[in-house]
Amino acid sequence: MVMETKTYSITFNLEGGKNLTALAEAGESLLEAAKKVNLAIDAPCSGNGTCGKCRVKLLSGDVEGKESRHISPTEYAEGCRLACSTKVVGTATVFVPAAALAYQNRMKVTDLGTSREREVFTGLQAELRNLDLFGDIGLELITLNLQAPNLDDPMADRERLFQAVTDQFGGDGSISVYALRKLPQVLRESGFSCICLVRKEQKPDQHYTILDFFPVDEVPVIPGIAIDIGTTSVSILLVNLQTGEPLAVGNGGNGQIRYGADVINRIIESAKPGGLDRLHRGVIDECIQPLIRELCQQAGIEPDRVYRVGVAGNTTMTHFFLKIPAEYLRLEPYVPAFFETGHLRGADIGIGVHPDAEVTIAPSIGSYVGGDITAGAFSSMIFKKEALSLLVDLGTNGELVFGNSEFLMSCACSAGPAFEGGDISCGMRATDGAIEACKVDETTMEPILTIIGPEGQKPAGLCGSGLIDMIGELFRCGIINAKGKLSREGKRVQRDEWGLGSYIVAYAAETEQGRDIALTETDIDSFIRAKGAIFSAIRTMLTMMDMPMDAIEHVYVAGGIGSGINIKQAVGIGMFPNLSLEQYHYIGNSSLSGAYAMLTSRKAADMVTEVGKSMTYLELSSHPSYMDEFVAACFLPHTDATLFTSDE
Amino acid sequence: MVMETKTYSITFNLEGGKNLTALAEAGESLLEAAKKVNLAIDAPCSGNGTCGKCRVKLLSGDVEGKESRHISPTEYAEGCRLACSTKVVGTATVFVPAAALAYQNRMKVTDLGTSREREVFTGLQAELRNLDLFGDIGLELITLNLQAPNLDDPMADRERLFQAVTDQFGGDGSISVYALRKLPQVLRESGFSCICLVRKEQKPDQHYTILDFFPVDEVPVIPGIAIDIGTTSVSILLVNLQTGEPLAVGNGGNGQIRYGADVINRIIESAKPGGLDRLHRGVIDECIQPLIRELCQQAGIEPDRVYRVGVAGNTTMTHFFLKIPAEYLRLEPYVPAFFETGHLRGADIGIGVHPDAEVTIAPSIGSYVGGDITAGAFSSMIFKKEALSLLVDLGTNGELVFGNSEFLMSCACSAGPAFEGGDISCGMRATDGAIEACKVDETTMEPILTIIGPEGQKPAGLCGSGLIDMIGELFRCGIINAKGKLSREGKRVQRDEWGLGSYIVAYAAETEQGRDIALTETDIDSFIRAKGAIFSAIRTMLTMMDMPMDAIEHVYVAGGIGSGINIKQAVGIGMFPNLSLEQYHYIGNSSLSGAYAMLTSRKAADMVTEVGKSMTYLELSSHPSYMDEFVAACFLPHTDATLFTSDE
Repeated sequence: MVMETKTYSITFNLEGGKNLTALAEAGESLLEAAKKVNLAIDAPCSGNGTCGKCRVKLLSGDVEGKESRHISPTEYAEGCRLACSTKVVGTATVFVPAAALAYQNRMKVTDLGTSREREVFTGLQAELRNLDLFGDIGLELITLNLQAPNLDDPMADRERLFQAVTDQFGGDGSISVYALRKLPQVLRESGFSCICLVRKEQKPDQHYTILDFFPVDEVPVIPGIAIDIGTTSVSILLVNLQTGEPLAVGNGGNGQIRYGADVINRIIESAKPGGLDRLHRGVIDECIQPLIRELCQQAGIEPDRVYRVGVAGNTTMTHFFLKIPAEYLRLEPYVPAFFETGHLRGADIGIGVHPDAEVTIAPSIGSYVGGDITAGAFSSMIFKKEALSLLVDLGTNGELVFGNSEFLMSCACSAGPAFEGGDISCGMRATDGAIEACKVDETTMEPILTIIGPEGQKPAGLCGSGLIDMIGELFRCGIINAKGKLSREGKRVQRDEWGLGSYIVAYAAETEQGRDIALTETDIDSFIRAKGAIFSAIRTMLTMMDMPMDAIEHVYVAGGIGSGINIKQAVGIGMFPNLSLEQYHYIGNSSLSGAYAMLTSRKAADMVTEVGKSMTYLELSSHPSYMDEFVAACFLPHTDATLFTSDE
Repeated sequence: MVMETKTYSITFNLEGGKNLTALAEAGESLLEAAKKVNLAIDAPCSGNGTCGKCRVKLLSGDVEGKESRHISPTEYAEGCRLACSTKVVGTATVFVPAAALAYQNRMKVTDLGTSREREVFTGLQAELRNLDLFGDIGLELITLNLQAPNLDDPMADRERLFQAVTDQFGGDGSISVYALRKLPQVLRESGFSCICLVRKEQKPDQHYTILDFFPVDEVPVIPGIAIDIGTTSVSILLVNLQTGEPLAVGNGGNGQIRYGADVINRIIESAKPGGLDRLHRGVIDECIQPLIRELCQQAGIEPDRVYRVGVAGNTTMTHFFLKIPAEYLRLEPYVPAFFETGHLRGADIGIGVHPDAEVTIAPSIGSYVGGDITAGAFSSMIFKKEALSLLVDLGTNGELVFGNSEFLMSCACSAGPAFEGGDISCGMRATDGAIEACKVDETTMEPILTIIGPEGQKPAGLCGSGLIDMIGELFRCGIINAKGKLSREGKRVQRDEWGLGSYIVAYAAETEQGRDIALTETDIDSFIRAKGAIFSAIRTMLTMMDMPMDAIEHVYVAGGIGSGINIKQAVGIGMFPNLSLEQYHYIGNSSLSGAYAMLTSRKAADMVTEVGKSMTYLELSSHPSYMDEFVAACFLPHTDATLFTSDE
């Protein structure tokens, strides 16, 4: 018997006017159909129907969908569907709102974020310079005035150049083919005078590489880039390597998200035929390359004149970045393909920078403690201090480092993407339209929102810091109880036909999408599990070392979750230990800061490796008390409320 | 006023069945139209109408052409046209015979040519081994049995590997990203045992690079390739680097030929917008890459497992190979962009071999003495001998090196492509169908031909060695006189309506194309100028050094012109000095031999550089007596016949 599969054309009508038509088989989901035309509809829950981010609207034709907690009967009647749980049964046209593409496509080129981020960055710069960790990257500009050749002196351009460089520089030299291709023109346009960018190599001593040329009358900028590859989003800093100042900053969603919000789903996808290539391209072609182009354009720099790259990311992300199989990361005994990479060249990776750019990647120390943490632990500087300090990095994985100049211990907990806006129906990354802070009136239950973006920006969702604030405020006002359930009635509190409560953060008329922004009990539940994972990890780590929570002298909070988080709220809901507010320090995106340090100093890069080597890894899942700690922490603030009732 | 250009579609119906349709503007030549669809119709004369190689046949539609010495009135009436001198005036379909594509497309993968070539190669191998110039290329296979990781020893694959390699090898290591990508799978499929290909780097000492892996039960072959990039044709030798034996040999026409037969026309083309890229692709994409793929396929090797490359070519060819601007080579003071390139990586060039393959290019010493000569001078070994020796390389440029272990002097003369079949209406490369030798009966004037190819191969044209033989025989039999004009009558001697004589080498019925193979007086004239250029260059060089011709103790004749040339004939027609035959040695393609030596020995590569540095270049064109010498040599055998009437 021959099975015949029917194929239908599904047209995706994107907000903004573009149309894409996919040929889909009967029974495939709209999400799968979209992937065929490389349309990345958001699905951070990996298409399980739980996150509700893949809402589309049927314009014509037939599909087979159903109502859900994300689609009300009215909305359903209007054509709203979740792309992940709607099947192709015939030809159809669906509208894809910008919101369904927001996670991945909202690339943003900004100045250095908020004033608080700028302050954090300036502090880091000062600290690095104090430690003499700046500028030792071997790049030097030298001005050359060569003798022009003539019939009696017909020496070739390269050899003529080497003679002059060796005179000034000593040692053996080589020249990038990229530079050699420019050389004949450069010399003749300049009358055989030019500025030459040379890199002293680390080994062997006395060896140098000629990278590029500039006209003598130009004051050349030597740009480099620092990249933080997060599971959810990627941040890039384009830096003037001479001054250390940022030239442009940007971030964008990691294009891999269509293969799952967490690393496990992506590793599974990567092991399928062609999967590794898809994951590699998802972050390189769809995210890092366009971001670099965008930043360079803004700064007026040609991308192939980016001469140095510093990269930090978790172990899975660096594997995909280099297109290296990652499947053994999730299989016992959980062994990465590499901890360190040695020095790579731009051409090894294909991100469009100078082919001989030195690419330095922060080393990982295990499958679940990656370069984001070694770079972050470095930039927090806790390894230099006597005081016992805790670094909390709120990424898609919550990651912790505890210790001081004597020892460093790290662990990772699956906090999920809640802090980056994932797993939350109204969640989003900290970009334009994100509610980053709020206040709720205890009596009227009305919120006052702070929104990222230009004057007049309408809210579009909640980013991590806004979410913490919102849940803290709802709890403080008694609108939700210790279990995260809505416990007051009012116009802002609604319940659907299944009895699921939600708090309306913003009404349809006020929002960017023209739809209510509502925080549901499911969202709150996701959040509570995330914060519970963080807190129980901290507890487990300290218990293991026989230390009380107040042994922690400083907490460094890191993560790209908006303008930094409201620590008081975070303590109030039991996410962070009950220490005095002065003990908390927001240090921004510590992974990006570490990548920046590695970019601007070879010594710093070596130190990141040293920090990694000195770190012990604690596997939480094998620790007997962790599960109990986690369950106990899944309350607001905690089942043991005394932990949060100090004199503060 | 707006000029409107009319556009017509020209369909090229290729012999073998393929059709290509180009949109051409009125007034463009068929040759230009063909270029638009990347169809490389032969035009070694650069489209001047002189070589007659671009014969096509009009099947339908209109074109504007004319009769010429290459197209008889009958042929014209039958639709025959020269593509270069026929203009588009409307829609048309033309037939392109295989012969018009022969120059470029006849890629040939062979065994090591004739027995004479094999003998030459075996001699070279023996000589290199005698001098201990073999195998010192740093590549080693080591067998590794690693401890498999477990939960207590979760060290990453790369670090685990390095530990083992350093144990066996010492020093600092790095790993090619290409190898790192394979590593996780290799280790797990092999139970953590594998064979590892490691390269000891030249500098710094003690540094090694891991290049690749093989299963423990495999006996790995380590392949490398030697490339000779000639102006007219490219030869490649795929070599087993462990044994030095060839795995496959091939050659193909240099795809750049459509931009002109000589380097000057190509340099001019390369300076146009996009021109450098076209020239680069012409040799890389159309010739070197497909040849490497073809040879590897024949030997059962993946091209990305070619770990080392040795390259020799003239200065212009190596510039185009690396995509480096070449226009200053032809402008005073004639300065190349580089003499040496240092060590390059496969990925720098993009020829499809291992991205970290070490690529070594023979250095040039000037715009007109390139790596083909330094490599050739090395492989001739004249720099090691006391005897005064002359190397004559019969390429598109005739190139000479004269000297011994005390001194080396070189010069180049524009012999043109006659020896490689160019510039001769019935000329072709030394591949199947080429007449490589002949005998003419003095009485009947009937020729007996020796043809390259399998039993029963019909003749298609004359290659270099056949041409020398044929002209030698015609001169010996008095069929042509000292000026190269036909001076006997007979059935083989014909004259066209303009009085131009030709000798019919083979009648239409006997030939591959079904057309007479005829050697015209114009062809003979081209040849006489070529041989005159060689002889006068030798004379000028020796005169300059105040040496008589018989100071030359040995002559090494190089060039890929068939099975080697008939020296007696070459002396008889005044191409080579009148020395005894024992003093002549045919050494095959010396440029390829030099590339082979560099491929199989780093010390040999260094010696090629040394040989280059010790060579003095004589610019013939600036020498006052060269022109007179040249004019005097443009006779058979020479205006001064006493030069060729010794006791021999």
